[in-house]
Formats: sequence, C-alpha cells, structure tokens
Amino acid sequence: MPSISQKGHNMPASPIRKLTPFADKAKKEGKKIYHLNIGQPDIETPAIMLDAIKNIDFKVWAYTPSEGTSSYRTKLASYYNKLNYDIEPSDILVTNGGSEAITIAMQACLNPGEEVIIPEPFYANYNGFACSSDIVVKPIMSYIDNGFALPSIAEFEKVITEKTKAICICNPNNPTGYLYSREELEALKEICIKYDLFLFSDEAYREFCYDGREFISPMHLAGLEQHVVIFDTVSKRYSACGARLGCLVTKNKELYQVALKFAQARLSPPGVAQIAAEAAVDTPDSYFETVSAEYTARRDTLVAGLNKIEGVFCPNPGGAFYVVAKLPIDNADRFCQWMLEDFSYENETVMMAPATGFYSTPGAGFNEVRLAYVLNEQDLAKSVAILEKALEVYPGKQ
Amino acid sequence: MPSISQKGHNMPASPIRKLTPFADKAKKEGKKIYHLNIGQPDIETPAIMLDAIKNIDFKVWAYTPSEGTSSYRTKLASYYNKLNYDIEPSDILVTNGGSEAITIAMQACLNPGEEVIIPEPFYANYNGFACSSDIVVKPIMSYIDNGFALPSIAEFEKVITEKTKAICICNPNNPTGYLYSREELEALKEICIKYDLFLFSDEAYREFCYDGREFISPMHLAGLEQHVVIFDTVSKRYSACGARLGCLVTKNKELYQVALKFAQARLSPPGVAQIAAEAAVDTPDSYFETVSAEYTARRDTLVAGLNKIEGVFCPNPGGAFYVVAKLPIDNADRFCQWMLEDFSYENETVMMAPATGFYSTPGAGFNEVRLAYVLNEQDLAKSVAILEKALEVYPGKQ
Repeated sequence: MPSISQKGHNMPASPIRKLTPFADKAKKEGKKIYHLNIGQPDIETPAIMLDAIKNIDFKVWAYTPSEGTSSYRTKLASYYNKLNYDIEPSDILVTNGGSEAITIAMQACLNPGEEVIIPEPFYANYNGFACSSDIVVKPIMSYIDNGFALPSIAEFEKVITEKTKAICICNPNNPTGYLYSREELEALKEICIKYDLFLFSDEAYREFCYDGREFISPMHLAGLEQHVVIFDTVSKRYSACGARLGCLVTKNKELYQVALKFAQARLSPPGVAQIAAEAAVDTPDSYFETVSAEYTARRDTLVAGLNKIEGVFCPNPGGAFYVVAKLPIDNADRFCQWMLEDFSYENETVMMAPATGFYSTPGAGFNEVRLAYVLNEQDLAKSVAILEKALEVYPGKQ
Repeated sequence: MPSISQKGHNMPASPIRKLTPFADKAKKEGKKIYHLNIGQPDIETPAIMLDAIKNIDFKVWAYTPSEGTSSYRTKLASYYNKLNYDIEPSDILVTNGGSEAITIAMQACLNPGEEVIIPEPFYANYNGFACSSDIVVKPIMSYIDNGFALPSIAEFEKVITEKTKAICICNPNNPTGYLYSREELEALKEICIKYDLFLFSDEAYREFCYDGREFISPMHLAGLEQHVVIFDTVSKRYSACGARLGCLVTKNKELYQVALKFAQARLSPPGVAQIAAEAAVDTPDSYFETVSAEYTARRDTLVAGLNKIEGVFCPNPGGAFYVVAKLPIDNADRFCQWMLEDFSYENETVMMAPATGFYSTPGAGFNEVRLAYVLNEQDLAKSVAILEKALEVYPGKQ
C-alpha cells in the first residue's frame, strides 16, 4: 500500500471537531446539547439573497471568470467603497470561501519555510493552511487579562527573523472577539513598513462591531497599499456560510496577478453564490441593525452571566460573536469532553471549544474555552446556568 | 514592497487564457469567433438540477459537513454503484470542484519533490496543482499517430524513480479524447502494484463515451483498492461547470482520513450545489442519450471535416468532447494567435487551443491544436471551412 505524505500526517485535525464523537454519543443518550462550540450563526440569511437563488434564470450553469464575474466584483467594490476602502473591482479576486483567499495569499507571498506572525489565540485553521502551504506560523501571545489586545511592537520584533514575510490578524478576532483600535493598526503599519512585511487582514467579522465602536481596516491606512491583503467572506456578514464565497482584496498589482494564476488553475468560484452575493450587497441597513442589536444583547447576557460564576473571568469584547473565558479548571480539553460525557443538568449540557486549539504554544489556554453566542438569549442564559452547575461538581476544579 | 514567493513566480499561467487578449481585440474589431478553445459545453443543465436550485427552502445558508452532506454522499454512492463501483458514502469526500480533489490528493499522497507520472499531452492545470503542491510532474509521451494510446509499461518504467509516488490519468482524456481500454488499465494496475504507486484517475468525462465503447475505471479492477483515487466533478456530466462541485473517491481509509483533514481546514464544499447535484443523480437516461448522440454527431462532423483538409490529421477519439489535430503549420501558438489577429473569412474566425500548452516536453505539440466540439454541427462545419481557408494562406504553412 503506498504511503501517505508527511504533510498528510502533519496536517492538524480540526480542534473544533475533536469533541464531535462525544457530542454524538451524548445526543444518542438523549441529552440536549447547547452548541456554543461553532461559528454557525442561527441568524436568517437575508431574503434578498435567498430570493436571488430562487430566481436564477440561466439554462447552462457555466464557469464564471476565474477572478469572479465582472458584475459581482463591481457591486462588491461599491460595498467596499462605502466603507472607505479605496479599491476597484480589479483589486478583488473572488474565492472559494475566505479559506481559499488565505491559502492563495500564503502560497503567493511566502516560500516554504518562511514565517507568518500571528497573535495567539488565533483561528485554528490558519495552522492547516500553513501546513498545506509548507509555511511556518510564529505565534505571539495575547492575554485574556487585557482582553487579548494586540501585543506590543517589541513583542513582534522579538520573533521577526529573516524568514518573516507577513503578519496575519483577524479583526474583529476569532476566537477572542477583540476589535483592534486605530492605534493598534498604526503599530502594525509601522512594523510592516519597517520590516517590509505583508499584512494579512482577515475581516470575516467586519459587520459585527458593538457599542458604537468603529471598525478600522489596514485598508484605511495610507502608505500600506502594497502590503495589505484582505481576506473576506460572505459567510458571517449575510449568515451564508454554505455559499463558500470569499475574496482576496489587494492593491498590490504584482501580487494580484500571481494570485490570479492560482485562481485560474482551479477555474472559477461558485456561480450561483456569486449571483446571490451580488444581490446581498443591497441588504438593507435595517438587517444589520437588527442583527447587531441581537448579538449585542446576547454578548451582554453571556458575558454578564459568565462573570457572575465564581472563578470565571470573561472580557467583554467589541466584535465578532465569540468570547474566550477563563474557567477554574485543570484542563479545558478534559473539561469540555467531561461536559459531554459525564455531566448533565436536567438532561442538558453545553458544548464549548477548548481554547487550547487556538494556541500554538503548548499548554497555553489550558484553562480557557471559546464560546460562540450563536444561540438566542434564553438558551445562552440556560447554558450559563448549566456551566455554573457543572463547575460546582467538575472533579478537576482548581 | 514585500516580494512575491518563488512559487508565485513559477506558477504557470493558464495556456488556454494566453490568447484571450487577442480574442478580445478581434471581437472589438467586429470579428465573429467560433470558440473551440474551451471546455464550456453549450448543452443545457438538466432541468431537475436547476429546479432544485429554484426550490431551496432553507432560511439559513449553513455550512455543510466538510466531507459533504450525508444525503448527497448517499445518493452519489448509488450513482457509482450503478456503474459497478463498489463504494460506500464514506468513501466519498465532496470537494470544491474536481480541482480541489486533485490538490488534496497530491498533497496527501506526495511529499514536496516527489513525482507523479502523467502521459502527455495532459490537462494543463495539473501543472498548476503540482506547482502549488511542490510536486513534480514527469511526463511520458503519447502520440497522435496511434490516437494517443497509453504508452507501454516499458515507457513508464523508464521514468520511475525512488521519488515516484503516483500515476495520473484522465479518462476519457482531456485534451485528446482518448478512452483507455481494459488492457491499458490492467497495464496501469500492474505498474502500480509492482512499484507501490497511487493511481489517480480523473474521470470528469466518464459520461462521454461513444460508439458503444465501454468505460473502464480502475475502480473496476480487483486488487487495486488501496491505490486508486478517483477525481470526479459534476461540471461536464450535467453541464454544471459553475456548480464547482467535485469529489475525491477512495477506498483507502488512511488516505481518506488524511484528505478529510485538508477538507476540514476549508470547512465545507458549496451548499446549494450539493442540493442541486443530489437532485441531478435522478437525471433520466434519455438526457444522456440525447447528449451522447449530439456529441457523437459533432465529433463525426469535426473529425471528418478536419481529415478532409490537406495536410491535417485528426484521430477519431472514443470519448470526452475534445480532439487534438495535427496541422501543417510551423508553430501552433503563432498560428492560433494569427487566426485571431490577422485572419478572417467572411469576417469570422476560429479560436483553438495550441496543443503546446498540454505538453510539458518543450517543443512537443508544436504542430497540434486542441478543438473542443462544444458548438452545434453547423457551427463546427463552418469552423472547419474557416480553418481550411486559413491554412491556405497562413504564412507559416509547412
């Protein structure tokens, strides 16, 4: 039997999915599970987007251009222009989900063995994309005590080597919900200019900023045009994760042309999704206002509830729909599994993501969990109550 | 300005697209172009598939499982079972087009620098996927004189080294249309067993076999179960190239589990496409009979017409919807560009793909072109007439 590649062996399994077998077993035993473990929103996709799917009128479901249809890119550019991004349709490369934008950027910008610095905890799949691209993630620690703010310039400089080619941020952040300030972005600009680095900005959660806080993108910073690569997706913006439609945005024309070659090899992004996403750009502001109010209320319920539990600390983040909370536990992986296998309260339990999966420093996040507030307030309140009961009896309580 | 990666520089541009600027210019000048250069069929997508899109009834466009929905994989397994493939839903990994199946298999099976043997001419994007995966394509020559039959076992053995990990075939073949016989597949089996190689079988054109010829897959060969990886797609089968839905099929469980890790990193394949493709499995046989009759008539028109032109030779292939023809010319790239830039007959011309883009041996295919018979018979006859006129006056005629 022929052998699997080393990369295949090294490829990290999704940390989110490690607990799935235990969840399946718990369900079979009749337990109700509150799923706070995944980023699948329960919010309805805008009707304007679903209607566009239902109203397709082509006879041949044909390839689109590799870079995306001209009409979608034009419409998408108008969306970005409203956000004060100075970009043209020709700066946009439409991709198979945000995931493909990340892979293409990594492969187009970094040679095998070169390094991208990412503040940790970070979106776990960056590890998978780095592995498949033979590049190296260099984590620098951010801390729950200050809400996971950007590490200082000095911390970045400690890990910058000749092999460093890029810094990657996710803003607002998955898993922490942290929203980077203008000052933090200016600091990143300073580093990227000084060391001639690409700045990858994953903005999947751009629409989810709360309490009137302003979203700042590196696209808003003059002088960084040749360094910035935006990763975007319709998944969270329109609650359309199944569309698998993202894009890579850059004003660096050399990079764009190279990225386009990667895109040409795989022919085209999905067709119906582009039609739907083009329509979605006209989603009324009221949709986002309703969604934002809903998420703000959920976040407040969750964060307040968590902080009331003895020994629990949870920052109140400015964006996305995740929080990372510190629990009085010995081992987050063990605890989250125990919640599914050995615990229930009124035959219900809560599924969370151990934060260890979002750190690459061994041992980091051992007493932290990520919770996605993708359930309604009542279910969130119930989840908090269950977690409180669980912490009272968990054998590994610290 | 940060520099692009070496891989980015090395990534091959799509040879099919090199001529696009000349075609655009010709169109601007008012020339009508018969497009025989691309594999975008004009055949209508089955109504059952388009209706499934129009009838979606979900409210949240959610992620599907990374490996594809259970219901689609179950239905797809039934499709394969009808073809006498002994496979289960759990052998199927649904992908973003056939393209992603190829990339995942290359990365899961081959280490950087390891080699896959592919008979040339071959589907040009294999080069792109190999480049992005840091693996090496070792071509072995097949020849127009015998219709591009599989090279002999001795020819394979000449290029097998310690680094060889796989053989890749496309059957029926793009670009040659050649349909491999049972004997040829048995020969491949012998090599793969002897040298412990994976056998990648790209079966995008499986439905397109003519003259009553039987399609044989390596899935039909006992004893090769741990070696075979099928690349499949709905693009050509249902004229649904824009769905971007393919799959990787293997009975090798270790490989499947590794491939699944790559799939988990990018979360999921497109959702609406899976709903549509599941419905498409019930496409009536009459659809395929009509399509097959249409393509057979087109092929016959095209091949007969080509062979009537002095100095032209075109084999009559058993499948797909391409032919490679030998023309009395000095340079296929120059000729195809000249057809767009400098020639027209009654203000019409023909766009073809120079075969050089499908060979990796330098100079090979210099007097060959690929023609896709994706237009109706009348247009094909017209195209042949235009080509004949062009060859009468082409300055580089040999």
